[in-house]
Amino acid sequence: MPKTNDQEKIEQDRRLKGNMSKIRHKFLVISGKGGVGKTSVAVNLANALSLTDKKIGILDVDIHGPNIAKMLGIEHAKLSVSADGIEPVEVAANLKAVSISLVLENPDEPVIWRGPLKMVTIKQFLSDVHWGELDYLIVDSPPGTGDEPLSICQLIPDLSGAVIVTTPQEIAVLDARKSLVFVRRLNVPVVGIIENMSGFICPHCHTEVNIFKRGGGEELARACEVPFLGRIPIEPEFVELADRGTPFVAFEDEMESSKAFLKIVRRVEEFTSTR
Amino acid sequence: MPKTNDQEKIEQDRRLKGNMSKIRHKFLVISGKGGVGKTSVAVNLANALSLTDKKIGILDVDIHGPNIAKMLGIEHAKLSVSADGIEPVEVAANLKAVSISLVLENPDEPVIWRGPLKMVTIKQFLSDVHWGELDYLIVDSPPGTGDEPLSICQLIPDLSGAVIVTTPQEIAVLDARKSLVFVRRLNVPVVGIIENMSGFICPHCHTEVNIFKRGGGEELARACEVPFLGRIPIEPEFVELADRGTPFVAFEDEMESSKAFLKIVRRVEEFTSTR
Repeated sequence: MPKTNDQEKIEQDRRLKGNMSKIRHKFLVISGKGGVGKTSVAVNLANALSLTDKKIGILDVDIHGPNIAKMLGIEHAKLSVSADGIEPVEVAANLKAVSISLVLENPDEPVIWRGPLKMVTIKQFLSDVHWGELDYLIVDSPPGTGDEPLSICQLIPDLSGAVIVTTPQEIAVLDARKSLVFVRRLNVPVVGIIENMSGFICPHCHTEVNIFKRGGGEELARACEVPFLGRIPIEPEFVELADRGTPFVAFEDEMESSKAFLKIVRRVEEFTSTR
Repeated sequence: MPKTNDQEKIEQDRRLKGNMSKIRHKFLVISGKGGVGKTSVAVNLANALSLTDKKIGILDVDIHGPNIAKMLGIEHAKLSVSADGIEPVEVAANLKAVSISLVLENPDEPVIWRGPLKMVTIKQFLSDVHWGELDYLIVDSPPGTGDEPLSICQLIPDLSGAVIVTTPQEIAVLDARKSLVFVRRLNVPVVGIIENMSGFICPHCHTEVNIFKRGGGEELARACEVPFLGRIPIEPEFVELADRGTPFVAFEDEMESSKAFLKIVRRVEEFTSTR
């Protein structure tokens, strides 16, 4: 006898619950404005945590601009299906990744979907991806407070926390503040705010130039009484590394941004140790 | 007798058609990735065109991160309602603006809406805003190929064209290419591609540093055989002006980015003169 829609929904909810129960800490990386470096924070956080012998999954729910595969250097890989469900792509020993871009035949193909279809896809990623046991799942959301982050907050009721990424200028901070109100309203704990692209050191004259200003993220954290996780400067090498699919946390000794980022990773770990 | 839903829909479609028929050229400004300067292109394009004695409207359909009001310095204004419909905010003699942020009571309030409600709002903006006669309507879309740009392309069947904004690095160009496929699939003419944040001139040593690389937008235009509208360099003053709500096209003689931008405006005007 074919299953009814209700039966299917109940079974999917059961699979989702079982799947999520095997993952210890689940984090959402969110921003109000686009282009503030949310995906690069998510990718580098996942990478840095995987180097500490923890088992990590990274899930890209940015359906229209899925960039984690490119930043991880796995853009030519594809998700497969086994008896256990959808198999994530193994990026490294302790790091697995899932993104809509790992399903698409053609990387130029835009996903022209309205909200309800996105919700269905995100739910399927949560219920049917065979992550196995994980220490951390990092979810990279598109900017804003729409269908994708809303689906994550509603479908993962025990979300450990949200990391909010902003750049320092007012326009970005204005939108980051909205993200903060959003996660609070959905009862998601706030890990803290990261101020990205904060100051640029000219590689020629070594003078610091605040292209996107400086301090806006830190001020927001103080005003809203949430932790300030740290500031990451802009480095042109960083853009090059992201395009090449190389995580910049691998260059700890050479790059200012890498050193700053690793301090932020320690703070995220501390956050989980208090839970 | 109360109207049925069908009657209401027919009447709204009629109002939308009437409203749009009074607007000569309608442009969508779109990007794949967020944070590439789409809103600032839209705001400065509207501003520059309004200085040529043309009547301009700017419509912000970025429901979750509406920034045009802030960039135009009208963030404390509110939309009003008259017998003719929703009255846009008058920014200057020839420039009117509409944004969801001009309706919200509290600027920190996130709009936590799923796709279908966004579509309803966008449709209402198109059918019920009393723009009057306009030479140009510039629509600023959120990044990606989701509900908002899809609604615009479907609801304005005679859209004059789409302006695609990208930054030069591969990650952004990858997403811009998706936007290009998106607008082509929806039969919207492509005005061309703008390469924003292309090169940075250090204000201290005057050396050029390609923070986000250089040339990616131009290469994409060549590969896809669409016009390349021009490249705009990064200037820290620009971020300051955007935060203060001052359009940078007002500084033609002083700023490299302003000079570059005005050339792009001329190209958009040329595009309309061929139609």
